[in-house]
Amino acid sequence: MTKVAIIGAGPCGLSALRSFEQAEKNGEKIPEIVCFDKQEDWGGLWNYSWRTGSDQYGDPVPNSMYRYLWSNGPKECLEFADYSFDEHFGKPIPSFPPRAVLYDYILGRVKKGNIKSKIKFNTSVTNVSYVNSNFEVTYRDKKNDKISKDIFDYVIVSTGHFSVPFIPEYPGMKSFPGRIMHSHDFRDAEEFRGKNVVVLGSSYSAEDVALQCHKYGAKSVTIGYRHNPMGFKWPKGMKEVFHLDRLEGNKAIFKDGHVQEADAVILCTGYLHHFPFISEDLKLKTGNRLYPPMLYKGVVWQNNHKLMYLGMQDQFHTFNMFDCQAWFARDVIMGKIKVPNDSEIEKDINKWVSMEEKLENPEQMIDFQTEYTKELHDLSDYPKINFELIRKTFKEWEHHKVENIMTYRNKSFASPVTGSVGPIHHTPWEEAMDDSLKTFLNK
Amino acid sequence: MTKVAIIGAGPCGLSALRSFEQAEKNGEKIPEIVCFDKQEDWGGLWNYSWRTGSDQYGDPVPNSMYRYLWSNGPKECLEFADYSFDEHFGKPIPSFPPRAVLYDYILGRVKKGNIKSKIKFNTSVTNVSYVNSNFEVTYRDKKNDKISKDIFDYVIVSTGHFSVPFIPEYPGMKSFPGRIMHSHDFRDAEEFRGKNVVVLGSSYSAEDVALQCHKYGAKSVTIGYRHNPMGFKWPKGMKEVFHLDRLEGNKAIFKDGHVQEADAVILCTGYLHHFPFISEDLKLKTGNRLYPPMLYKGVVWQNNHKLMYLGMQDQFHTFNMFDCQAWFARDVIMGKIKVPNDSEIEKDINKWVSMEEKLENPEQMIDFQTEYTKELHDLSDYPKINFELIRKTFKEWEHHKVENIMTYRNKSFASPVTGSVGPIHHTPWEEAMDDSLKTFLNK
Repeated sequence: MTKVAIIGAGPCGLSALRSFEQAEKNGEKIPEIVCFDKQEDWGGLWNYSWRTGSDQYGDPVPNSMYRYLWSNGPKECLEFADYSFDEHFGKPIPSFPPRAVLYDYILGRVKKGNIKSKIKFNTSVTNVSYVNSNFEVTYRDKKNDKISKDIFDYVIVSTGHFSVPFIPEYPGMKSFPGRIMHSHDFRDAEEFRGKNVVVLGSSYSAEDVALQCHKYGAKSVTIGYRHNPMGFKWPKGMKEVFHLDRLEGNKAIFKDGHVQEADAVILCTGYLHHFPFISEDLKLKTGNRLYPPMLYKGVVWQNNHKLMYLGMQDQFHTFNMFDCQAWFARDVIMGKIKVPNDSEIEKDINKWVSMEEKLENPEQMIDFQTEYTKELHDLSDYPKINFELIRKTFKEWEHHKVENIMTYRNKSFASPVTGSVGPIHHTPWEEAMDDSLKTFLNK
Repeated sequence: MTKVAIIGAGPCGLSALRSFEQAEKNGEKIPEIVCFDKQEDWGGLWNYSWRTGSDQYGDPVPNSMYRYLWSNGPKECLEFADYSFDEHFGKPIPSFPPRAVLYDYILGRVKKGNIKSKIKFNTSVTNVSYVNSNFEVTYRDKKNDKISKDIFDYVIVSTGHFSVPFIPEYPGMKSFPGRIMHSHDFRDAEEFRGKNVVVLGSSYSAEDVALQCHKYGAKSVTIGYRHNPMGFKWPKGMKEVFHLDRLEGNKAIFKDGHVQEADAVILCTGYLHHFPFISEDLKLKTGNRLYPPMLYKGVVWQNNHKLMYLGMQDQFHTFNMFDCQAWFARDVIMGKIKVPNDSEIEKDINKWVSMEEKLENPEQMIDFQTEYTKELHDLSDYPKINFELIRKTFKEWEHHKVENIMTYRNKSFASPVTGSVGPIHHTPWEEAMDDSLKTFLNK
């Protein structure tokens, strides 16, 4: 019997498990599946853990999730085609839910079936090699500190790329008399109440961590960008300055001459695509980009078509894109989709990669990823979903952010699955301090 | 040619490298040696790094060192027999130096030779297996993310056991609105100025982290012990209470009914003996104890005499004990010491293990480890050193701590190597805020 290893039970791994479950429900004979996850429960980064650094078994904590995270994009853009928000919650809900609500939603559709029994929790994959036309997968049972090895026909890598921080060094860090940390270890904005916080970065983490620190009472928040500022209209108490030059004592000195006293420096400097467990010939090496090379249709490893990577793209589209990728991977594995010959693969990858390299602004990037996801969608039986509405929603959302970074989360959008429009939330985001599911859904 | 892999270039790994260098100086033909270290420089935990969590290559940071660490034992007890403090510093220095001074000393003797060229830095060993009468050692060049494999005749594991924290969970941690961290990630007591700090633990980390937080201005320090209190006469602002029951909001509630508001909870809950890279049959599994089983003379792996572990003991004796172990391991590898037959090994290990299990107090533990180190010392040509003086010094030091935990570091002791007596330091420890080498040595 064909055996498939899925590495990781976060959103992408769960998409893969769900895709096979749906085929089985349609009466198809599916392969034997083993999913490995190093955490003790499913949901990947949508699990919140107070832990940072190492877990109780001495393994690095993969989790980057923090308290008080509200979705930074409309939930309508990430909705599953086969399981709507309306179906899960029994009613339309507002467009920007906090973490606990999204976590509940993600797990909702997989809880219904027999999926959890296929997952080995507390198990970290330590090696994947291709030997004699099969994959040798070595894994460690963390609880019992026991190493085992199994053979698989296919491997799906769904380990995410927001788990392993990239942490650069700046002069003066060694003697800075305060806290230096990466956003990966950020857990609770309340720790920074009354503090002068310096945030380094200009992407989603920097934006959200900075806003959170401000919202929960930091004395000042100074964001240092390196290439381009985010350029939002920051509220009083926040500012964006150019590139940290060095720390001197407790002072952060920026290249534009700005000097700021700092109690904490939070490095929102991004994450690594990090696969230390995969042998050289199978390893994706890429920065965070919309079309990582070496992946046919963004999924199938160019040099070995029995290896798949899910969700390795820089992302506007998320959960429903992961689904489209998972359904595509499933059909390749089950022989319903034939991968073309090497030169056609090469041509197809090059086409997308060279398109990506010409993109100049967020609107073009949204278009690019919508086109990619639509193409993938057409290749499988993943249910219908209105990608044109998603495209439009992403663009409106971008405009809302530019208009007012403090209020964009108070808007509402229409579902690309059911068409229902999310109600305006009962409390504006800036005043909503409690991030519980209960408070969000009721009142 | 015989090939030896040394894993780790901290104090134990450097002892091993030094032991072979000394044999070579005596005209002996030594094996080919490769030492692997995952940090970018030598010195193991005596390196200070501001980093916590992951390093710049996505690897867990092994470092547990923090600023303002002063030796918590007399330097005379850890002195190298072949390289005295007097020789290194050119004069007697006080007995309780800060980290930078000890770091300088540790590296002093290895800098003189050609030792550094034998170390592959930024290289983490990912697998050690015994195959066809040899060791297969797989390692990752972290900078280039490249995996390689080599064959060795002997492996010396000197990776330490203060790198991988043990982090238990208590009820309420998930919703505690403050900072929770392990002492492994403690870097700077100044972060806790004006804060209510709860420290959990009752061993060296708890003692020192608690004292540091107090010394650098914490509002209150509450230490929760689980089995036995440390029982020192804590200064005003510090107290020791019984066992954390739970956190409720920002309150720490202890099993003795004590309730304490907390801004931060620091888990000083110890470290794991953690060797995820070693195959089952070769892996030491032990808690932190004076005589881990399966190690002949505390060094040679019982089931494979070509594998050695250094420094895996709970420690009163440190650097000179590591030296005695390294010299012993070297002589086993070079055939100068013959390992006896299995039943004698079994008998010898059992003798020590059963003696250990009868120990009742610190004095007996000091005696036990002094006897062990002396026996090991007699087996090699490691230079003469006065272990009876070290034994006496340890016992006096214990008494000084009981007398006054705030002043024991102001005492001075005699060198077991040169006999010279360390001068009293110019500044009492409680008032010494600057931990630099310059300030300590001059003034």
